[in-house]
Amino acid sequence: MMSSVKGYRTVVTGANGFIGSNLVRALLESEAEVICLTRPEADLWRLADVQKDVRIVTHDFGYGMPDSTKRYVGGADLIYHLAAAGVDQTFLDSRSMINTNIGGTVELLTAALQWDARRLIYCGSCFEYGSGNTLSEDAIPRPLNQYAASKSAAWIFAHAFARQHGLDVVSLRPFTVYGPFEGSSRLIPQTISKALNGSSIPLTQGEQERDFVYVDDLTEAFVRAGTNDKVAGETLNICTGIATSVHDMVAKILQLSGSESEPLFGSLAYRESELWNLSGNPDKAKRLLGWIPSRSVDQGIQETLSWFADSPDEIKLHYSGDY
Amino acid sequence: MMSSVKGYRTVVTGANGFIGSNLVRALLESEAEVICLTRPEADLWRLADVQKDVRIVTHDFGYGMPDSTKRYVGGADLIYHLAAAGVDQTFLDSRSMINTNIGGTVELLTAALQWDARRLIYCGSCFEYGSGNTLSEDAIPRPLNQYAASKSAAWIFAHAFARQHGLDVVSLRPFTVYGPFEGSSRLIPQTISKALNGSSIPLTQGEQERDFVYVDDLTEAFVRAGTNDKVAGETLNICTGIATSVHDMVAKILQLSGSESEPLFGSLAYRESELWNLSGNPDKAKRLLGWIPSRSVDQGIQETLSWFADSPDEIKLHYSGDY
Repeated sequence: MMSSVKGYRTVVTGANGFIGSNLVRALLESEAEVICLTRPEADLWRLADVQKDVRIVTHDFGYGMPDSTKRYVGGADLIYHLAAAGVDQTFLDSRSMINTNIGGTVELLTAALQWDARRLIYCGSCFEYGSGNTLSEDAIPRPLNQYAASKSAAWIFAHAFARQHGLDVVSLRPFTVYGPFEGSSRLIPQTISKALNGSSIPLTQGEQERDFVYVDDLTEAFVRAGTNDKVAGETLNICTGIATSVHDMVAKILQLSGSESEPLFGSLAYRESELWNLSGNPDKAKRLLGWIPSRSVDQGIQETLSWFADSPDEIKLHYSGDY
Repeated sequence: MMSSVKGYRTVVTGANGFIGSNLVRALLESEAEVICLTRPEADLWRLADVQKDVRIVTHDFGYGMPDSTKRYVGGADLIYHLAAAGVDQTFLDSRSMINTNIGGTVELLTAALQWDARRLIYCGSCFEYGSGNTLSEDAIPRPLNQYAASKSAAWIFAHAFARQHGLDVVSLRPFTVYGPFEGSSRLIPQTISKALNGSSIPLTQGEQERDFVYVDDLTEAFVRAGTNDKVAGETLNICTGIATSVHDMVAKILQLSGSESEPLFGSLAYRESELWNLSGNPDKAKRLLGWIPSRSVDQGIQETLSWFADSPDEIKLHYSGDY
């Protein structure tokens, strides 16, 4: 059962991204009012079919939020803060990343406080932990690169702000999220694209293990976190607790799609700083939020395959480089 | 026994501050070469007597470190990074604080890496923890304000940088440091000033407990951390493990100074967000660094009183507002 955000005024930063666009849909389905904060130059292809149902406010994250934007932020019942620079972790300009991810978060927190927003939900990252298996929220942050450090730093600021000023802040830490609208360069869309067109798939040996979460399960957690009193001030892993290797995930996609594509395991070298294990402990989210991941990897991949198959050409176009 | 940094090239950022200036003296006593990085507008009164023995390089912390500065940083055996904005925790411009404390740290890390510095020692803060007693280094950061959040964020970046690039980074987390050259507005200098001139002392009830560390004990830990292999990548509390109330500290100062000043306990209100307990567990520093605080509070206060009494007029002047 979804908690009800019906009639809530919600603001989603980074609404045009993979997780953001799925969250926008989930909020609309729950009959919330949705205001999307996106960069002026953002490509809104992931929001094309719902663009008429939301308000798009363009905003360059970083310092100097204009009052016109603050008014949207301030009137909100819920602010979902997903915007971040450097998600692909190859981003090298640390100044922009600090300005956007930390400065932008502090600006948003300040606006939320000054304009009486009810709750801010910060979208953190499993990368805040660094690496490990069955990680719990009481593990100290050990990020392995500057993007992950900036996400961890913004988390620290958000909760410091909450403690200092009484702002209601909740953090969710999604693990490896997949599903409709995921970026085309990522493992699962790449594999599905190649599986569907029958081409061979260059891969590492695939021994890396990840905790794969289907995006609709994550957005349900975001919606629940919007109305649950017990999570105020808390940080919650959003994960399954199950580690699946890249090898097994690729094999699963090939099996479920009935593809004859050949997976070329070992044809790609591992990264120099390969991250071998990254899975979380979902107990706290279950306990406080009543959230459990409702889809097995089989079900999630099946739904993702259906979405790929059923998507209109305008969406398929965004994955066409990989077909 | 002090570890030997004799002949080491050391860089101290924030060298003109309370801890920085004491560290500069400790390094000079250990026959290290000392380069002081200070803001162009910094008042160097705390370094007046040693200014001839060091090289002062002015640098505005934040982004865009000039190559001329990087060369000093890079040639260093040890970089002691103490510079931070907002130490008095009343600083409200979060942008400058983020730029200086996080951006400035990332710039310094980048320079240290590019120019082959051997080790960077980050001066963190007990405020990274928030509050609590006998706090250990595996406690997650729970800072209570933006200054503390910026110190914690810079710590996260420093160690992320170390993990990603193999830079040798060590963090020390001093608790409540006191001794010669402490800022005149702080509890102990205020109390000593008033005790020495016999005026009454406005105070809260003084129930707040702190873990007081004498500055020479801290600088010994900094020197030891410069030459110890076991602490690479580690974070170490520098504290005594003993919680002393503000009330008892003031009483101690009055007793040891033989002052007839009247302590007006309760004449000042507690702060709205008073921090009741803040003490650390010193076991890790003892285990890895062989460091233990060598002075009791009695000895530390006695030495501080002597320093006040023996200081030349140029130094007394800096506390004269409080006499």
